[in-house]
Amino acid sequence: MSEVKSKGLAAKQASYQLINCTTEQKNAALALVAAQLTADHQMILSANEQDLAEGKANGLSEAMLDRIMLNEQRIQGMAEGILQLIQLNDPIGETLETIEKENGLRIETKRVSIGVVGMIYEARPNVTVDAATLAIKTGNAVILRGSSSAKHSNLALMNSIHAALEKSDLPKDAVQLIEDTSRETAKELFRLNDYLDVLIPRGGKTLIETVVREATVPVIQTGAGNCHVFIDESAEVEMAENIVLNAKIQRPSVCNAIETIIIHKNWFTAHGSALVAKLQEQGVEVFGEEMVVQTCPGVKRVADEDWSTEFLGLAIRVKIVSNVEEAIEHINRYGTQHSEAIITMNKQHAEQFLARVDAAAVYHNASTRFTDGFEFGYGAEIGISTQKLHARGPMGLKALTTSKIMIFGEGQIRG
Amino acid sequence: MSEVKSKGLAAKQASYQLINCTTEQKNAALALVAAQLTADHQMILSANEQDLAEGKANGLSEAMLDRIMLNEQRIQGMAEGILQLIQLNDPIGETLETIEKENGLRIETKRVSIGVVGMIYEARPNVTVDAATLAIKTGNAVILRGSSSAKHSNLALMNSIHAALEKSDLPKDAVQLIEDTSRETAKELFRLNDYLDVLIPRGGKTLIETVVREATVPVIQTGAGNCHVFIDESAEVEMAENIVLNAKIQRPSVCNAIETIIIHKNWFTAHGSALVAKLQEQGVEVFGEEMVVQTCPGVKRVADEDWSTEFLGLAIRVKIVSNVEEAIEHINRYGTQHSEAIITMNKQHAEQFLARVDAAAVYHNASTRFTDGFEFGYGAEIGISTQKLHARGPMGLKALTTSKIMIFGEGQIRG
Repeated sequence: MSEVKSKGLAAKQASYQLINCTTEQKNAALALVAAQLTADHQMILSANEQDLAEGKANGLSEAMLDRIMLNEQRIQGMAEGILQLIQLNDPIGETLETIEKENGLRIETKRVSIGVVGMIYEARPNVTVDAATLAIKTGNAVILRGSSSAKHSNLALMNSIHAALEKSDLPKDAVQLIEDTSRETAKELFRLNDYLDVLIPRGGKTLIETVVREATVPVIQTGAGNCHVFIDESAEVEMAENIVLNAKIQRPSVCNAIETIIIHKNWFTAHGSALVAKLQEQGVEVFGEEMVVQTCPGVKRVADEDWSTEFLGLAIRVKIVSNVEEAIEHINRYGTQHSEAIITMNKQHAEQFLARVDAAAVYHNASTRFTDGFEFGYGAEIGISTQKLHARGPMGLKALTTSKIMIFGEGQIRG
Repeated sequence: MSEVKSKGLAAKQASYQLINCTTEQKNAALALVAAQLTADHQMILSANEQDLAEGKANGLSEAMLDRIMLNEQRIQGMAEGILQLIQLNDPIGETLETIEKENGLRIETKRVSIGVVGMIYEARPNVTVDAATLAIKTGNAVILRGSSSAKHSNLALMNSIHAALEKSDLPKDAVQLIEDTSRETAKELFRLNDYLDVLIPRGGKTLIETVVREATVPVIQTGAGNCHVFIDESAEVEMAENIVLNAKIQRPSVCNAIETIIIHKNWFTAHGSALVAKLQEQGVEVFGEEMVVQTCPGVKRVADEDWSTEFLGLAIRVKIVSNVEEAIEHINRYGTQHSEAIITMNKQHAEQFLARVDAAAVYHNASTRFTDGFEFGYGAEIGISTQKLHARGPMGLKALTTSKIMIFGEGQIRG
């Protein structure tokens, strides 16, 4: 049996054992994981140095090396995150609905664990710990498939997690790492329908598109964010500037940063040049339509009508529209259904925009950067869903649960 | 542009218009559909006769012809179903959660329409009307792809629905039928990611497996039902007999009928022969393990350890176990996560079974035949989900909705 299949089978069996574990047992296991990571930090850091050395030798970019890099502080952050996770309410077992039928049947819908969750991800070794601990908290088994660029770090983290689980009441097989990071193991995971209940990809556009195209197991699509801010005619100038600068610059590499500003033509005539200049002062490269190129120095033409590329860096496009309708149409055509904002003093326009823009999170007069499980108060985040089924937007603990209907009778049969 | 693509695009555009439609407008459109179906019954019945004639010429089975067949009563039933649907609460717009943050952000999660729902189904023309009207009620556009065996009926029903929609405030393109029933249009639907938000297959195992294997759009898996009743040692004899007979015989062709009885060995020794005889008296062919074959006359050996086949007819398998553990293991190995029942007077065994059997609906002392949106009081049913994401078990109106997070600010930016 292949590594993927045998670990899949072990995870499935562990998932059945997890059903019997109490909240106290799961939290105790999490505390052990936090303590073990801290105790093992030297081992983890030296494994991480190996990944970094290999990454440098392979010519990885500085940005990529930073994603892979661990240090004392980042490991401490992981342990603290786990202690916060322990404090969150356990969603498992919650009664969602009770129906009493005239024939005496009692129909209770309960929140239960999904079973076996697969995660496939790139670079960041912290995803290994996030996914493992969120799965433990929600009573799911998890199969992790990280990238080769972080394989030593992921293995060290997994050894630490396993050492903790062995001291706990939970089955060690509840958390599994696929050690072979070849393409073949990814493809096997895509089609592991016998053991996997869901597969969550986290990483770049190519990874996510590949999973969506090739997986036969149910997938939760995450992450791609071609987000927009629309500055309406009546937008307050300082507010618009602050929100655009925040949404572009505060952390340009993430999915809830914006890639395009859509501006009402009258607002643009009055305040467009000043806004563009402020972006340029902060080192942002600005691309625009012809009108923007002609009005603002240093702006390049948007090439080939490409309104879709995610820059994930200090670059932005400017699109001019005549009304809120056009803005909505542009977003619904090019957006990735992630986070979209309107800046306006016109309540009716705001309502229209929020109702008709097709995205997980829609904002009136605030920065798209808030789309985040922690900012929304969920206390945790396994990813941000950009699909409409099961979970939409930031996914907290509830996104790792499903429901089960329990029917209690005294011999009822159907007439 | 192909038929599928152009109808997909039209449906997507209609879905944006549906966002502005009120509950009153949607219910008025439903009333018009009900009236139009009644008015057009002659036209629909003569189209149906064409399908039946072609079906007979093509040698379709009686059972299949019955699925295709419409009559005055069945059309009347459709119209009455629509009038009941009008009475149900509109789930769209419901506020699911409101969070007020310290920074003044108000985060409201609302229930919204999914967008464009695809249905691919076999034979039964009533699915055309069910899917169209459930989509209208929930503000979704829908693309229907029925089978060639019901193509004249489906087209007549669609013409009637379109005539009704033209008199309504809803866009006619909200409901679309793919008229070309070749394999190519099904394959195009599987990969219509630009326009389809979800695809729901309804039909036989082969159809569902093909969709799960080939679709890149999100799928809700429905229908396959290899269901079991487990008769525990302490099961009350008459109750067990009644439930088994009901779950097998009352409507053997449906997914919530049972295919295997699992019996505790002591119960079997005392009451097994009588139960098997009662099944045989009702015309049920019984297959069993060696022990059952030797004890009960007329029982055939279960061939090739095949515990997976769905008979969908008057046949059943009998499996003997030593305890509830073995019953749970057998079900988790061979079941299709649909509906599973335990008959027992032992509360602890019932709790164990309900917690650990991996299925959408788990029963204590009642027939699996109750797994149904109407029986559970949802007032409607678009299918029965056997997957764990998004919806599980019978899918009512809420299964055709998703959520959207609306964030209201006064210029907040992330620090």
